[in-house]
Amino acid sequence: MRIDIITLLPELIKSPFEASILKRSIEKGIVDVHMHDLRKYGLNKYNQVDDYQYGGGAGMVIMIEPLDKMIHELKEARDYDEIIYMTPDGETLNQGIANHISLKENIMIICGHYKGIDQRVRDLYVTKEISIGDYVLSGGELGAAVLCDAVIRLIPGVISDETSALTDSFQDGLLAPPVYTRPADYKGHKVPEILLSGNLKKIEEWREDKAYERTKNRRPDLLNED
Amino acid sequence: MRIDIITLLPELIKSPFEASILKRSIEKGIVDVHMHDLRKYGLNKYNQVDDYQYGGGAGMVIMIEPLDKMIHELKEARDYDEIIYMTPDGETLNQGIANHISLKENIMIICGHYKGIDQRVRDLYVTKEISIGDYVLSGGELGAAVLCDAVIRLIPGVISDETSALTDSFQDGLLAPPVYTRPADYKGHKVPEILLSGNLKKIEEWREDKAYERTKNRRPDLLNED
Repeated sequence: MRIDIITLLPELIKSPFEASILKRSIEKGIVDVHMHDLRKYGLNKYNQVDDYQYGGGAGMVIMIEPLDKMIHELKEARDYDEIIYMTPDGETLNQGIANHISLKENIMIICGHYKGIDQRVRDLYVTKEISIGDYVLSGGELGAAVLCDAVIRLIPGVISDETSALTDSFQDGLLAPPVYTRPADYKGHKVPEILLSGNLKKIEEWREDKAYERTKNRRPDLLNED
Repeated sequence: MRIDIITLLPELIKSPFEASILKRSIEKGIVDVHMHDLRKYGLNKYNQVDDYQYGGGAGMVIMIEPLDKMIHELKEARDYDEIIYMTPDGETLNQGIANHISLKENIMIICGHYKGIDQRVRDLYVTKEISIGDYVLSGGELGAAVLCDAVIRLIPGVISDETSALTDSFQDGLLAPPVYTRPADYKGHKVPEILLSGNLKKIEEWREDKAYERTKNRRPDLLNED
């Protein structure tokens, strides 16, 4: 999979791609991530990329022209399965969307900043608008990093069997059950006995019960979905 | 506000705090962010911080002992208003929670990794469990960066009036209306005429209509809340 990220602040999300799973997936050649600094197509001698919004009001808007040029450059080099704009008013990211995107070959991600991008870019080019949640961030960069992490870890070969994504929260519609590791007794705080019993069938039942109980207490909405 | 982040991968979220709004808020002395590498309290000569989970199954679990020691060290130095654990089965972050946390003085954020942290740490210390959305990430680090960004930008003095948070999506229960900037005509793609009219009352009405329409189309659930 190839991911092209258009941003005003490539340095902001440098480190997430240089550590842990994202780093390894890039090193293994499973994913190819490219950052594109929008200022490459900034206007005039100030390299301008944003301007006041028409109609007045607080906050700058990223201009159509630099984005149009950057998107054109990328689209001429290859076809994109999705051109995604990270925005709080987009479709809310969930595990299903992450699964879906993980099957794509080439995706472009546009990060907004300030008040967002000129609406005409959204109308003309964007095929998918994604929000990572109901809160406002100072730009789309962290959202893009979150989307990449959620998607990339689902691509076969990225994480080993041992850390298999299949037993994670949401994959089976339930939250994950509690987990414990050594020591079994830490200053009097003990691990539930069942987990030490060696009875795999009982342990599996206990985990299913706990996953269901936790979901019912914390996220009953997940149980009401199909 | 002081934020202490406990993580196995401090380098993963280095860059978000060194750019843009987070950087400026730190430089202005409004926020004080400290990363704590959990391996400081790793066990034995391997600096072990995780182990297999009791009861079997894929994925490693972060051990209680290093976390217990790190949390103790921090709690001895100051009182914390919240000890937050980033986890997909936590309460889903929204703008209201971000507003609430932005009023706190000292918060501690624990990032999980792999299958998560030993449940006993959650039972003993954690006062708030937060998920940034219904998807699984490879660790809590990006979630912590997202939480910090959402919270810090709400603290008075962090962003200027011009980029005021008050007109953002969610603050008034509606998604934001479309925004446009110059040029008014880009290759035949025009800005809505009303925005060029100079009639502030009509512009305000248009924006309210558009915000309502977008919310109704994309997120009718937001309209059904209080």
